[in-house]
Amino acid sequence: MKRLRPISFAQVEIDDEFWSKRQQTNRTATLPHLFEELERAGNIPNLRLAAEGKREGYQGPVYMDSDLYKALEAAAYVLKRYPDDPIRVKVDEVIDILERAQQPDGYLNSYFQVVAPDKRWSNLRDWHELYCAGHLIEAAVAHYHATGSERLLNIARRFADYIDSVFGAGKRLGYCGHPEIELALFRLYEATGETRYTQLAEFFLLNRGRKIFAQEHNTPLEEYDGAIWQDNLPLLEHREIVGHAVRAAYLFAGATDLAAYTDDDALRERLLQMLLRVWDNTINKRRYITGGIGNEPKHEGFTADYELPNRTAYQETCASIALIFWAHRLGRLLGEARFYDALERALYNGALAGISLDGKRFFYVNPLESDGTHHRKAWYGCACCPPNIARLLASLGDYIYAQSDDALYVNLYIGGRVRVELGGKPLTLEARTGYPWQESVALRVVESAAGRFKLMLRLPAWCDAPELRLNGEPIAVRRVDGYAVIEREWAAGDAVELRLPMPPVLMEAHPRVEADRWQVALQRGPVVYCLEETDQPAPLTHLAVRRDHPLHSIWEPELLNGVVVVEGMAELLEDDAAWGDALYRPLRERSLKPFRAIPYYAWDHRRPCPMRVWVQGV
Amino acid sequence: MKRLRPISFAQVEIDDEFWSKRQQTNRTATLPHLFEELERAGNIPNLRLAAEGKREGYQGPVYMDSDLYKALEAAAYVLKRYPDDPIRVKVDEVIDILERAQQPDGYLNSYFQVVAPDKRWSNLRDWHELYCAGHLIEAAVAHYHATGSERLLNIARRFADYIDSVFGAGKRLGYCGHPEIELALFRLYEATGETRYTQLAEFFLLNRGRKIFAQEHNTPLEEYDGAIWQDNLPLLEHREIVGHAVRAAYLFAGATDLAAYTDDDALRERLLQMLLRVWDNTINKRRYITGGIGNEPKHEGFTADYELPNRTAYQETCASIALIFWAHRLGRLLGEARFYDALERALYNGALAGISLDGKRFFYVNPLESDGTHHRKAWYGCACCPPNIARLLASLGDYIYAQSDDALYVNLYIGGRVRVELGGKPLTLEARTGYPWQESVALRVVESAAGRFKLMLRLPAWCDAPELRLNGEPIAVRRVDGYAVIEREWAAGDAVELRLPMPPVLMEAHPRVEADRWQVALQRGPVVYCLEETDQPAPLTHLAVRRDHPLHSIWEPELLNGVVVVEGMAELLEDDAAWGDALYRPLRERSLKPFRAIPYYAWDHRRPCPMRVWVQGV
Repeated sequence: MKRLRPISFAQVEIDDEFWSKRQQTNRTATLPHLFEELERAGNIPNLRLAAEGKREGYQGPVYMDSDLYKALEAAAYVLKRYPDDPIRVKVDEVIDILERAQQPDGYLNSYFQVVAPDKRWSNLRDWHELYCAGHLIEAAVAHYHATGSERLLNIARRFADYIDSVFGAGKRLGYCGHPEIELALFRLYEATGETRYTQLAEFFLLNRGRKIFAQEHNTPLEEYDGAIWQDNLPLLEHREIVGHAVRAAYLFAGATDLAAYTDDDALRERLLQMLLRVWDNTINKRRYITGGIGNEPKHEGFTADYELPNRTAYQETCASIALIFWAHRLGRLLGEARFYDALERALYNGALAGISLDGKRFFYVNPLESDGTHHRKAWYGCACCPPNIARLLASLGDYIYAQSDDALYVNLYIGGRVRVELGGKPLTLEARTGYPWQESVALRVVESAAGRFKLMLRLPAWCDAPELRLNGEPIAVRRVDGYAVIEREWAAGDAVELRLPMPPVLMEAHPRVEADRWQVALQRGPVVYCLEETDQPAPLTHLAVRRDHPLHSIWEPELLNGVVVVEGMAELLEDDAAWGDALYRPLRERSLKPFRAIPYYAWDHRRPCPMRVWVQGV
Repeated sequence: MKRLRPISFAQVEIDDEFWSKRQQTNRTATLPHLFEELERAGNIPNLRLAAEGKREGYQGPVYMDSDLYKALEAAAYVLKRYPDDPIRVKVDEVIDILERAQQPDGYLNSYFQVVAPDKRWSNLRDWHELYCAGHLIEAAVAHYHATGSERLLNIARRFADYIDSVFGAGKRLGYCGHPEIELALFRLYEATGETRYTQLAEFFLLNRGRKIFAQEHNTPLEEYDGAIWQDNLPLLEHREIVGHAVRAAYLFAGATDLAAYTDDDALRERLLQMLLRVWDNTINKRRYITGGIGNEPKHEGFTADYELPNRTAYQETCASIALIFWAHRLGRLLGEARFYDALERALYNGALAGISLDGKRFFYVNPLESDGTHHRKAWYGCACCPPNIARLLASLGDYIYAQSDDALYVNLYIGGRVRVELGGKPLTLEARTGYPWQESVALRVVESAAGRFKLMLRLPAWCDAPELRLNGEPIAVRRVDGYAVIEREWAAGDAVELRLPMPPVLMEAHPRVEADRWQVALQRGPVVYCLEETDQPAPLTHLAVRRDHPLHSIWEPELLNGVVVVEGMAELLEDDAAWGDALYRPLRERSLKPFRAIPYYAWDHRRPCPMRVWVQGV
């Protein structure tokens, strides 16, 4: 069933106009910033306290360790390409602390060691112990892949083995209020080959929905919903994405891993039915055009189909990232381009908006409309998003390529090189592109001993008329599962050019989305745009996009680190002075002036002002 | 100062395609219905209890008498033209009861006589005693004018004299939480010439704002607002219309009477400054396009400038009527057409919507948008609106004409005859028109001994290009204060034709009205339209008016007792089935289909369905 094998960041060298800059900033600005904040806010000091056996001085919420682990994971990816990066010192220091802090039985959690040793596993619903363990494991696997060192991996394995001794069939029934450990255990399996870890993940996944949190908190079952924690239904019975958005997408990502790794065909079949049902619900009814999920602040999650308000949109940065994780796993498992369409939308928009261009400020919440008061911050009391976006950017190489026995899949168009073995033979492919600003992607076989294989190029759903050239000659586009397939004997020097025409386009939402009715959004290629008031000839409230005027793309190299802006004609409401006293009047012809849209990911970098993704369209 | 003298219903005979039907229904259906309900609900039985000295059995809220008095007033107007109408029996019966119920000191209020004799005047803020007295007085004056009988007038005078013995300079400081008595006392003065009544009205008016309700209810002054009762400021200091909408407009109508009748020029000047300031605020910032006022349900009143939501619009029927009263008085006082523009808008739209075509069902609340669940009812626990609209319709003759020493003013275009003395000489004018459906108004001098005088024809603000003919020849329109002035020696047989072109027009609201932004409303002549879903090719949520397509008027004699409907082209959102699964897509060309709008006053007469006055305009 598992059609594609991952090609990891370790095999991919990114050399890309758009992304290399972001990765560079991530390494030189974001990572130092993260570790500075992790010292200041207490995340690292908490673990030092644990290492020293202290019982007081703990700072912050119960899940502080997890933010450090995500930063550690980000740092690990960086160390693969930059082994001498100064962050290595910090990483090694933290590993020292973790080694000293880990308890003899393998348990490791600064909150429970410093503050509440007697409370271990007593509130699985809220206290994030397994969640923190999951992030330790993910960091450890990344560190192992990046450096070859098993120090952190051994810490993670000891903890995982201890967890395995507590939970499981015939042991304790339990699962974490915040899914994450499931994903992590599959990664630990990938690194170690130990099936105990996939079995434990399966246990956590398939028991979810047994409403253990009701019992844990003495909630009468008739008053217990459990949807926030996806504990309302057995995993296989979910039909819609519900509850907390990050938890939901992490859960279904883990469930996708289970579908990939299980030997039980019937289980895989049922898992896939459920996953595709919930995926379709997510994508077709509950996702913002910017690719993110979670429409309401109260539970950081979902309410109802088509309920997608813009000003109060939650679209947590972590939720966009979580959706990327899930999409990646479904794409790998099923080999269909549509999952990478979703991944790309979340990556270039909802997720990327989460971090400032200078890498030091972050959105937790990503609304699609702002009155000018919503801004990125250097840190948060709940600082899950900053290190999460850092690890995503650092591991971007994981998401670009995949392979099967006879095919190399190109899922994202990002410049650089990939080195793989296909059918046991080495293959090096180079990509050069100005994506997402430019339409052309040039792929060149640098080295190939692989002979005949398929090159599978994702044809983005946003692109109407992709064009292909092979060694300079136009060729027909043969589509399979959303990919253009070119199957031939490949030789070094073979060149493919994929052109993805990306005119700026006005988008509309399903009429059931009340918040977007009679409005339009702008998209060009994978990039969703927004209007900031500072660029406009009138307040955003007074401006409507004229649908009958053409849109233009303009490359602005000096603006926002270089962006393509989109311009068109807006119809303007008169201001107070021009209106005079009347409250109502016969409709007048309105003046037209150009408006300018910038990529959504780049908003809130200039003077604070109102912003909208969806704008009245007339 | 008082430029115009009223011409009362008693001098006007209405014979009009549009209004005669409504008056006929009012007489034959509404009045019997009202008195039936007033028996059933307890209003008349309560007074019987009082007449019999009973102390129990009272039904309904404290202000039950007032609803009966308004019905009595409506019946009185009817008796002028139809002295043998069966309603006379009921009217006389009620007068009998009132005579018997009135206490020796003149006091008359069923609630306080039956339920709480010891509570008289103890809660002026909430208990409506002076309000009920006011409606008794208005009914009595109408009955006196209509029938010549002084029976009811004497009851009212006895009560007024008693009130005058309680309240006033050197007596008790007080005023009613619900203004009304002020208006009534000026009418009583008009009928009797007794200046004591205007002095008492002046006392109530000019002391308002002394925050007596704070003391009455032990509210600390720093916690007391008083705006609901217009007790937040001294009368002369008001700048905006605030609080309960009906109370506000009744208060300012009374204040306008004071400006008309006072001999104190400085007071009149200050009153007029305040009144015009508040009027402008009302009309330019706080009134619905349908002519009514009061944007919020909680206090049945006002919130802030430009805050005019449609679905939750309150626009109480009584508030439209109250605005008509105020506009009428300002128009009479200042002789400017703009006040009658406001009166006409409220009359043909906000107020008229308050009563069903069959005269037996009533709106209390008149929203500008409905999901299909808001319907007229036969009666209300607080039944202020049904008899209020009945007395307005019955007294319509009061609003059409006015006069000065040398001019006859035509303020509303309603067919019929008016007989006046102008400079002591008789004049009879006849009007024939298909207004508001047809553009032409034909006026003919039937009899004139008045010689030279000015005929002043209101030029509605909605009309761009009025045309005038005198005895068949086109003449130039000379405008003064919003009127076309024709001054000449008039003789019997002289004919004037006023043509008021009334193409259907798309209207827009001031951009600060967020609820109406990018929307349009339809208006034709004085009639504001709405769309009911039953007439449309798609749900109202899926329909936008195309601004670039022409509108058409069509006379539909069988529809809703005969209306002109307006048709145009709508752009339609696709329905679910046509959309398929996608949540977002490139904007497509949308299909166009005709929509149909009906007069707002006639909505909710067919199958229950959504309705909107403001519709998306593209």
